[in-house]
Amino acid sequence: MDALQQEILDMGKRARKAALALATLTTAQKNAILLSMADGLVTCQAAILEANTKDLKAAEENGLNTAMIDRLRLDAPRIEAIADGIRQVAALPDPVGETLDEWDRPTGIHIVKKRVPIGVIGIVYESRPNVTSDAAVLCFKSGNATILRGGKEAIHSNGAIADALDFGGREAGMPEGAIQLIRTPDRATVRYLSEMDQYLDLIIPRGGKGLIETVVSLARMPVIKHYDGICHVYVDKDADLEMAKAIAVNSKTQKPSVCNALETLLVHRDVAESFYADGGQALLDAGVTLRGDATLEKVLSGKVEQATEDDWTAEYLDLILAVKTVESIDDAIDHINTFGSRHSDCIVTRDADLAERFLNEIDSAAVFWNTSTRFSDGEEFGFGAEIGISTDKLHARGPMALPELTSYKYLITSDGVVRG
Amino acid sequence: MDALQQEILDMGKRARKAALALATLTTAQKNAILLSMADGLVTCQAAILEANTKDLKAAEENGLNTAMIDRLRLDAPRIEAIADGIRQVAALPDPVGETLDEWDRPTGIHIVKKRVPIGVIGIVYESRPNVTSDAAVLCFKSGNATILRGGKEAIHSNGAIADALDFGGREAGMPEGAIQLIRTPDRATVRYLSEMDQYLDLIIPRGGKGLIETVVSLARMPVIKHYDGICHVYVDKDADLEMAKAIAVNSKTQKPSVCNALETLLVHRDVAESFYADGGQALLDAGVTLRGDATLEKVLSGKVEQATEDDWTAEYLDLILAVKTVESIDDAIDHINTFGSRHSDCIVTRDADLAERFLNEIDSAAVFWNTSTRFSDGEEFGFGAEIGISTDKLHARGPMALPELTSYKYLITSDGVVRG
Repeated sequence: MDALQQEILDMGKRARKAALALATLTTAQKNAILLSMADGLVTCQAAILEANTKDLKAAEENGLNTAMIDRLRLDAPRIEAIADGIRQVAALPDPVGETLDEWDRPTGIHIVKKRVPIGVIGIVYESRPNVTSDAAVLCFKSGNATILRGGKEAIHSNGAIADALDFGGREAGMPEGAIQLIRTPDRATVRYLSEMDQYLDLIIPRGGKGLIETVVSLARMPVIKHYDGICHVYVDKDADLEMAKAIAVNSKTQKPSVCNALETLLVHRDVAESFYADGGQALLDAGVTLRGDATLEKVLSGKVEQATEDDWTAEYLDLILAVKTVESIDDAIDHINTFGSRHSDCIVTRDADLAERFLNEIDSAAVFWNTSTRFSDGEEFGFGAEIGISTDKLHARGPMALPELTSYKYLITSDGVVRG
Repeated sequence: MDALQQEILDMGKRARKAALALATLTTAQKNAILLSMADGLVTCQAAILEANTKDLKAAEENGLNTAMIDRLRLDAPRIEAIADGIRQVAALPDPVGETLDEWDRPTGIHIVKKRVPIGVIGIVYESRPNVTSDAAVLCFKSGNATILRGGKEAIHSNGAIADALDFGGREAGMPEGAIQLIRTPDRATVRYLSEMDQYLDLIIPRGGKGLIETVVSLARMPVIKHYDGICHVYVDKDADLEMAKAIAVNSKTQKPSVCNALETLLVHRDVAESFYADGGQALLDAGVTLRGDATLEKVLSGKVEQATEDDWTAEYLDLILAVKTVESIDDAIDHINTFGSRHSDCIVTRDADLAERFLNEIDSAAVFWNTSTRFSDGEEFGFGAEIGISTDKLHARGPMALPELTSYKYLITSDGVVRG
C-alpha cells in the first residue's frame, strides 16, 4: 500500500469516528455549527479569494475555456451566496430522529422505525468550488461525515473553502473529521475512495459522464448517480396547442444547460403539421435549432435540419431540439422508455385517461402532465435544497434532498421477551 | 462478445420489456398469476422431484456433506410448503401504487409521490432450490422482473421449479420474461449479470461471503447485501440478571445457525461474576462453548476456553459464544461499533436512559432493549415475508420485505404551468 492510499484510509477511519459522533448531535448543535461555518467563510474571504486567484491563473495557463473559467471564479458576492446557502440549510428541518413508523406485535415486542444518518459519504466532483460547501453542509445537516474529492482545477479554492468550513465549524464544536477534503490531485485518490467500503457508506459522483462511469466501475459501496437528462415533451392529438407551445418553449429555452431541459419533442401525427407551423416556428424564433423528420421539413422547409438516430439519445444541453412525429401515444411511450434516460418527461393533452396512462407507463423519476419539465428540481418541489437529481431507482430517485441523505434503523423493546 | 454473454444480454432485454408490462398489472392480476404459479408447482411435482434426484445423485458423487445435501433435498411436503409460501405472498398487500406523499406548490403544480416497482432484479444464490421460487415471487408481487442465477448443485431442481412457475404463471397471463433462470452453470454468468447495468436495476446476492464479495466487486448496479450477523447482547450493571440469562440463552441457542443469533456477549464488570456463575452456567448447560477472559475463567474455571481477538469478529453460526467483560456502557458501545456487523444488538438493563443511549449510539439495523436478537426477522416484524436481512444502510436496512423491493416516482400536474 502506498502512502497516498494510507492517507485516504486514515481519512476514512477519522470520518467513521466522526460519523458516530455526528449521529448523536442535536439539531440545535448542528445548526449552530452550520451558522458558524457560514461566518467562517466570510471571515476567511481574503484567503479564499487568494487561493481562487491561483486556480484562475493556472486555468488560463492551461487554456481552459471561458465557460469553465467562469464556473471556477469566486468573488465576494459569490462567497456571500455560498455562506447564505449554508444559512438556508441551517433553517431547514432536520430529518434525523424522525419516527417513520411504530407498531406493536402480538409477541409483546414494540418496534420503532427511526430515521438516522447514512454515515460516511464520499463526494467526487468537478470544477465548481461551491460544491465543496454545498455538498458538505447538506451531508452535515443530515448527520453524515463527508470526504470530498474535487477537481484539480479548483484545488486551491476547494482547500481554502474546506479550511474556512473547518475553522468555523470547529469553533462551534464540530467533531474532528466531520468534513475532510482530499488535497492531493492524484487520480488514484478516486480509486482509493471508491474501493474503501469498510469506511464509506455511499459515494456520490457529481460531474460529467466520464467521472460517473469511473466511479461506477470502481465503487464497492452504493453509488447515487446523477446521469444525463434526455427529457421529452409529448404533444398529444388532444393537446391544447397553445399550452403545448408554451411548455415546449419553456422546457427547452428557460435554461438549456441543465438536466431537466427538454431534448426531444414528440408530436402526434394528427396535430403535427399545425403544431410545427406555430409551436415549431416559436421554437425557431427563440433561437432553437430543430432536428426533425419529413413532416417537420415539409412545414418549416429550409429552416430545420434532419434528425438521425443519434439525436434520440443526445443530451444537447444547448439550443438544439430533436423532433419526431409519432403515430400514437403507444409510440411515444415506447420511444421515451427506449431512448430516454428515466429523468423527466411530459405529456400535453386534455385527455385525463391518456395522461394517466402516460404518467403510469413512463419509467422516469418525474413524469409531468401539462407542466414544464423545468419543475423537476428540489427547490421547485419545495425541498429547500437538493444535492442533485438522481437517475437511479434505488434509495433516492429524482430530486434528492436532506431526507434522501438518511437511512433508518429499527428500535425494538419489550420486558424481556424471547422467541418461542 | 461470446455466445453466453449474448444470451445473458438477451435475457436482460426481455426482462426489461417484461418489467414495463409488470408495472401496469393490477393487484388482482398479479395475485391470480401467483396462485396459478402455486398450482403449477403442485402440478409439476413429479418433474421437480425427478430433477431433484439428479442433483442429489451428483451431490453424493461430488462428496457434498450431509447438511448441504439436506438443504438440497426436495420431497412432496417441501414442494407443498414452497407452493404455500407463494399463496401467502399472494395474500400480502401490494405495495405498488401506494401514494407516499402528495402536495401543492405556490407555482400551481401538484406533486404526487407514488410507489412503483424497481424494475429488473438479479438474484444470485447458492444451493437451496426453494430460493428460486421464494425470491422470484416476492419480486413478482412487487412488480419486478427477475433473472435468477442459482448454484450449480441445484441446477436441475432450479430449472424444474422455474419451469413450473413459468407454466403456472403463463396460464394466468404472466408477461413473457417476468421470471427467467440462467441455466448454464458457467461462473462467467455471475460476471455478465453483475456488469449488465443497462438492464438490471438491482442485484441481490444470497449466499456465503465469497459469493457476496464477488458480486460486490463486479456489480455496476446497486447491490443489496445480506452479510453476516455478528450480534451482541450487552448485560448492563443494572440488568435484571434472570432476564439477561433468558435473553442470552434464547439469542444464542434458539437457532444458532442464523444471522440474528448471538455471537458475542458483553457483561459489565460490576455484575460479571454473578452473571457468569448463573447465566454463564446456563449457557454451558445448553451446550454452548464459551470463549472468554480471566473473569469468566475465574468463575467457570476449567469449563471455558480463552478468547482471542479473532473471536470478536467471528460469526460462529454454531453453539460457540465469545464473552467479554467490559468496563462501562461506553466500552460496550465502542466494542460493538468496532467489531460488530451492524446487524442486531441488544442491551439488557433496567435503566431507561442508558437503554436510550445504547439504542441511539449503536450503528446497527436493529437495536434491542430487553429483547432477544432472534426477533430481527421480517416475519417477527409482521412483514409477512422477507427476502433477507440487509446489512446495508442504503435503500433497505434490516429485514427486507415487499415495500423494500419498490422505488417511487413523482407525478406532477398543472394546467400548463411553466417556470418563470
